[in-house]
Amino acid sequence: MITESSSLPTKRATPSVPIHELLAERWSPYSFSARAVTTADLGALFEAARWAASSYNEQPWTYIVAVKAEAKEYERMLSCLVPTNSVWAKAAPVLVLGVVSLRFAKDGKANPAAVHDLGLATASLVVEATSRGLSVHQMIGIIPERARVLYRIPEHSEALTAMAIGYKASADELPEGLRERDLAARQRKPASQFVFTGQWGQPFAGA
Amino acid sequence: MITESSSLPTKRATPSVPIHELLAERWSPYSFSARAVTTADLGALFEAARWAASSYNEQPWTYIVAVKAEAKEYERMLSCLVPTNSVWAKAAPVLVLGVVSLRFAKDGKANPAAVHDLGLATASLVVEATSRGLSVHQMIGIIPERARVLYRIPEHSEALTAMAIGYKASADELPEGLRERDLAARQRKPASQFVFTGQWGQPFAGA
Repeated sequence: MITESSSLPTKRATPSVPIHELLAERWSPYSFSARAVTTADLGALFEAARWAASSYNEQPWTYIVAVKAEAKEYERMLSCLVPTNSVWAKAAPVLVLGVVSLRFAKDGKANPAAVHDLGLATASLVVEATSRGLSVHQMIGIIPERARVLYRIPEHSEALTAMAIGYKASADELPEGLRERDLAARQRKPASQFVFTGQWGQPFAGA
Repeated sequence: MITESSSLPTKRATPSVPIHELLAERWSPYSFSARAVTTADLGALFEAARWAASSYNEQPWTYIVAVKAEAKEYERMLSCLVPTNSVWAKAAPVLVLGVVSLRFAKDGKANPAAVHDLGLATASLVVEATSRGLSVHQMIGIIPERARVLYRIPEHSEALTAMAIGYKASADELPEGLRERDLAARQRKPASQFVFTGQWGQPFAGA
């Protein structure tokens, strides 16, 4: 189901118990090929985000998209990334800003789940991307004030994240430092450090 | 791949373009059967969360678990839910609190992605659950101060969410009001209302 060139690093997760391949195969590359993402694939990614769960079904997420074929729009969005991100993200054929509405539309009250729910929706987008052989590299390193001005993001909404979306490429072309990161093994805390029962710090035996 | 009794409502999403079945089949039931979740399945859910992406690989999520077989622990966790949630969640064989570490472990600085990344990890957990025929109903309606005291959640970490996890049951046994919600069709905004390009409010043609 996952289409991927076998000549590229896969950096599959090394889970301690088997997990679904769409989760195990996901990682965040620094190297993207020039190959464009089809409009159909891109539409499916946002459709996947659309059906995510959210508190009170508020759907507090908004995505702003720029594709490389629209050079001027692409450059505008690239300018919203911090330089340490734009240096590699500029290779990706698609850039997306993740924007969160911090208040409920119906009464203007604060939505305590809003930022969390942007994460839920984006994770769905990433699962759909993985199933289509695409990679997504999420970033928190953006310039939200610049995004607000450029895209006229309204009050009580905020650009929080960005994504580079496309097809993985060989790490060979990356600048030093990034190349090593793209080739390094993935590391995670053991579950015993973050799955507890009874009280904080007490590992849950089932995890 | 998705095992599910055909006699239960599936409430599959009605996407405007096809999306992966693990995303389309996910929804948040109010009705759970008494059937226990195996330790192996539960372990895989947290393993799925473990491999989620996070800003600087901080992995700012912690989960606290209570299973119904441990009646006292289960009751303690149930007491952290607001009454409108505990009334139905008490049927689920597993309850989980989602806790977020708001500062980076290495330097104590604020992690602006922390809450978002709890959402990413939990979404992975939900995908794994769906692939195993399990359902997850996420909640924001919890009593964080109570959770802090009961579980000794440290400063700069906060309980934000809860989850009821188990197997869907018929909605027939639900109290009125909840029954209707469990049977109602799922609704989402069209993509044209949340996928923009160029500027806020301008729909992206590819979505």
